[in-house]
Amino acid sequence: MADYRVPRDDMQFLLQDVFQVDKDWARFPALAEVDLDMASAIIDEAAKLAETLIAPHARAADEEGVHFQDGEVKTPASYRENFQQLAAGGWVGVTANPDFGGMGLPKALSAQYEEMLCAADISFSLYPGLTSGAIITIDAYASDELKQLYLPRMTSGEWTGTMCLTEPHAGTDLGIIRTKAEPQPDGTYSVTGTKIFITGGEHDLTDNIVHLVLAKLPDAPPGSKGISLLLVPKFLPDNQGQPGERNTVKCGSVEHKMGIHGSATCVMNFDGAKGWLIGEPHQGLKAMFTMMNYERLGVGIQGLGAAARSYQNALEYAQERLQGRGALAGRNMDKEADPLLVHGDVRRMLLTMKALVEGGRAFSTYVGQQLDIAKYSEDSEEKSRAEALVALLTPVAKAFITDTGFEATVIGQQVFGGHGYVREWGQEQLVRDCRIAQIYEGTNGIQALDLLGRKVAGSRGELLKPLMADIAALLAEPMPELATEYAQLDKAVQRTKQLTEHVLKQVAGDENVINSVAVEYLHLLGYVTYGYLWLRMAKAAQPLASGRPQLASKIKTAKFYMARLLPRIEGLAAAIEDGSQSLYLHELGDF
Amino acid sequence: MADYRVPRDDMQFLLQDVFQVDKDWARFPALAEVDLDMASAIIDEAAKLAETLIAPHARAADEEGVHFQDGEVKTPASYRENFQQLAAGGWVGVTANPDFGGMGLPKALSAQYEEMLCAADISFSLYPGLTSGAIITIDAYASDELKQLYLPRMTSGEWTGTMCLTEPHAGTDLGIIRTKAEPQPDGTYSVTGTKIFITGGEHDLTDNIVHLVLAKLPDAPPGSKGISLLLVPKFLPDNQGQPGERNTVKCGSVEHKMGIHGSATCVMNFDGAKGWLIGEPHQGLKAMFTMMNYERLGVGIQGLGAAARSYQNALEYAQERLQGRGALAGRNMDKEADPLLVHGDVRRMLLTMKALVEGGRAFSTYVGQQLDIAKYSEDSEEKSRAEALVALLTPVAKAFITDTGFEATVIGQQVFGGHGYVREWGQEQLVRDCRIAQIYEGTNGIQALDLLGRKVAGSRGELLKPLMADIAALLAEPMPELATEYAQLDKAVQRTKQLTEHVLKQVAGDENVINSVAVEYLHLLGYVTYGYLWLRMAKAAQPLASGRPQLASKIKTAKFYMARLLPRIEGLAAAIEDGSQSLYLHELGDF
Repeated sequence: MADYRVPRDDMQFLLQDVFQVDKDWARFPALAEVDLDMASAIIDEAAKLAETLIAPHARAADEEGVHFQDGEVKTPASYRENFQQLAAGGWVGVTANPDFGGMGLPKALSAQYEEMLCAADISFSLYPGLTSGAIITIDAYASDELKQLYLPRMTSGEWTGTMCLTEPHAGTDLGIIRTKAEPQPDGTYSVTGTKIFITGGEHDLTDNIVHLVLAKLPDAPPGSKGISLLLVPKFLPDNQGQPGERNTVKCGSVEHKMGIHGSATCVMNFDGAKGWLIGEPHQGLKAMFTMMNYERLGVGIQGLGAAARSYQNALEYAQERLQGRGALAGRNMDKEADPLLVHGDVRRMLLTMKALVEGGRAFSTYVGQQLDIAKYSEDSEEKSRAEALVALLTPVAKAFITDTGFEATVIGQQVFGGHGYVREWGQEQLVRDCRIAQIYEGTNGIQALDLLGRKVAGSRGELLKPLMADIAALLAEPMPELATEYAQLDKAVQRTKQLTEHVLKQVAGDENVINSVAVEYLHLLGYVTYGYLWLRMAKAAQPLASGRPQLASKIKTAKFYMARLLPRIEGLAAAIEDGSQSLYLHELGDF
Repeated sequence: MADYRVPRDDMQFLLQDVFQVDKDWARFPALAEVDLDMASAIIDEAAKLAETLIAPHARAADEEGVHFQDGEVKTPASYRENFQQLAAGGWVGVTANPDFGGMGLPKALSAQYEEMLCAADISFSLYPGLTSGAIITIDAYASDELKQLYLPRMTSGEWTGTMCLTEPHAGTDLGIIRTKAEPQPDGTYSVTGTKIFITGGEHDLTDNIVHLVLAKLPDAPPGSKGISLLLVPKFLPDNQGQPGERNTVKCGSVEHKMGIHGSATCVMNFDGAKGWLIGEPHQGLKAMFTMMNYERLGVGIQGLGAAARSYQNALEYAQERLQGRGALAGRNMDKEADPLLVHGDVRRMLLTMKALVEGGRAFSTYVGQQLDIAKYSEDSEEKSRAEALVALLTPVAKAFITDTGFEATVIGQQVFGGHGYVREWGQEQLVRDCRIAQIYEGTNGIQALDLLGRKVAGSRGELLKPLMADIAALLAEPMPELATEYAQLDKAVQRTKQLTEHVLKQVAGDENVINSVAVEYLHLLGYVTYGYLWLRMAKAAQPLASGRPQLASKIKTAKFYMARLLPRIEGLAAAIEDGSQSLYLHELGDF
């Protein structure tokens, strides 16, 4: 696989020129110390880790995988030392609370750091990634005592965290989980049950692992309203807070998977394991959603990272591989063939990747910015507006970035022809590693249901308004040289509003309509949002573009996006208009 | 992985009711012995092989892979005996010339047999599949002496065949190959060069392997007009035609790939190996295209087989897995949840798969029928019409069935949630195995170039006419209960014609336009053709549907296809209208 090079310029362009996040940072007391110079230094430092420490081991880690024996898991050879180095640099606690040793960096910046880790090696990135999510959840819901005990050690990367939700019979449907938590006289709980698909449930990177486990208390009401959240450490901390007695939670096996071979996906057996309640009884799902929402943007970024890496490799290959003769410029008449990049179809593939990758990077930075405003702003109106944007866009970020990211990795494999199917080039690994991001942390179908059912229909469309207002503000001042493209986006926005109305009208009379059009609706909103971000990027690039081809390229790619990718919404619109109609003609036995 | 069950009813419905192939067979002297009863018996026999002999070993073969040592390749444990059994039943020579022991079956029927093999195990299917292609090429171009020597042994499956095209620096661009063939005093040739990605280049299934090798003679004109085709056996036949002296062709290594692990993908080193010219000097590409055109429908069928298997598994899972509550029918109030199949989004996924799989099956049977007419008809007008359809539809069959087949396997993985990512369920293997079909035998981008450049633009649109006439004949008698759907197809056909005109007009002034819109054009034609086939199926099903839910389902699925999948052409149309415009804004250095 080619060396990974962090796209520093594009990242900086987004922070500084497109989203001007430094203006937010300057207004928020908690972020007063962060500025663009510091951001740039952080990006450089993180880039060094991603490029030289982590990325070079990703291929070998894929081949090596994880090994399970007698309840123990051995991760790929490079992982332990690399995790220690990452932890030593404070990178596990990038977004964590500074009160417990975290860096407390803004999410707009840390989202870019996460992209680097994922582009370098998704499998490796999951160990610190899940830990960050667990830290946030404990910080938000646990007692002070638990926080004092666990957060410093997790933030420093001494211990890692997991989220234990799925059971063999209960995936999407958490209401039917069977894991039990019995209250004990000392105030702790005895946790018993089997959890599956637990990322990092067991490994050899650190001395302790902290499980956040969904379980039911004896008096739990049925369904999803009766789920509690328990903290269950692998080793019970002793009086000094060091790993002491072994708790009765054990890894039963690891899964053999399509990809992310370096990530240990564990069956975890809790056998009367000692646990502590996090938050209120029966309110565990709410607490877990804190973690899940955090992870969902993170999972979106996995799709982005894989796609960005694949694009980089494919571009390099298309520039170097000589094959056939192109019709126009770029001919190599002194050589036996021209570079692939002269061919229209290769350009179609690369520009599709480029538009999706840079659009996804803009999107994750945009959502990161809104998360920062929601967290740090002291203006309640601004804060609740950002919260609304985050609520709306989180499922879109998770599903749309991974769906388009997967598409991009598949294209990136296609550019390589037969070599894309062979392991040594690494393009096929990116396809395999990216694929899981469409499935876990709530399948993309579930994200769509969350978006259209809970968020859009649940608010009678109100939650769409801040996004639509942001887009309207851009459309109010069109760039003359992109007049066609501004008009296209305007039309797409009107179409989105009209389709939203259409669905909202149907909801009352048709219980199935939401679940029948949710995925197409999410994609519609994704394409429109990427269209908005492409025109924002074009606008920010224009005054700076003279003599900077990378920025001039933004305007060209925006045109490509509008001409060739945004029109996909017409097919989606037809499906949305069809509603549940053509999906419910078949009886159960008709398939 | 669930047991494979051949969709006999659907296959029979296509042969008997939709395409009425028996009426063709009865007219053609060479097929006079074939009738629907015989076809049914053949399907039953082949189904037994696919279901009980081959399919049960596919998972293990994936895990086991092929092993290379000192030039020898060991295939998965079950393969040698299963190949012998297949050969003993005459199944390697299914379509081969009866003069050399072949069954000489019509392609409409053998296409269905191929689907079974691919659904059972694509890797395994490649060994007989490539052999069939080599048989056809030798039969069409080799000298009588070579035919007498090689064809009986290849048809019986005693020996297998390969096609050796690609070299490390030459994939799509065969004009720049470097392998040389030097004429020898005895009339043979000395072949020297390195070929890569050679499927079945070395294995332990049979006693000899017959390579068909593209090479350049010393006096070859440059480029693709100077390529010759050589037959190079692994063992030189002795006087009795038995494998004798070892030829100097050797396997240098095997590739480690994303999928088709049971298939040996070999680097083959020819070191002055003895070969025989097939056909005329410098006319090798034409001869090789005989094989490639045959293989291209076969590769399309690989996509179909993987998708069909994935659909079967996903449907079974969606019927059995209980998760969440559905809004309407099918509720399981006595159980803790409803089957997945009640949910709109799950129905969307399964119906998308069903529409693509059954559409693909109809398409491959349709192309098979045209191949039979082209081969066996004694009416020259009918024959040349069928040849035109085959020329037009072969690249569509290869690329569209594999692109939509890959989409279907990815959906089939998604239906399983996390279990779809785990190897034991087999859904992820189907994704990996299917993926190569979009790449080899000419990437799908190259198929699109062939379709739009050589076939459509090359004939100034003439080659489209027989297909358009077939569609017009159907549209002339719309079904009243599908009036909307007939109108939709009519509109899509008009749009296709208009877009074709648009492209043809641009060709003269824009050298890049073909290569810039070819993939979208191929998909456009694919969706329209599937639309045509869905309405043909609905029409054939209607008079038979009463009391037969599988046939009533055809009408329902046709409605689904028209409402939710055909409208994708709108996005494609926009890209086609854009032409090369947005693809050539970027300079080579702008990416």
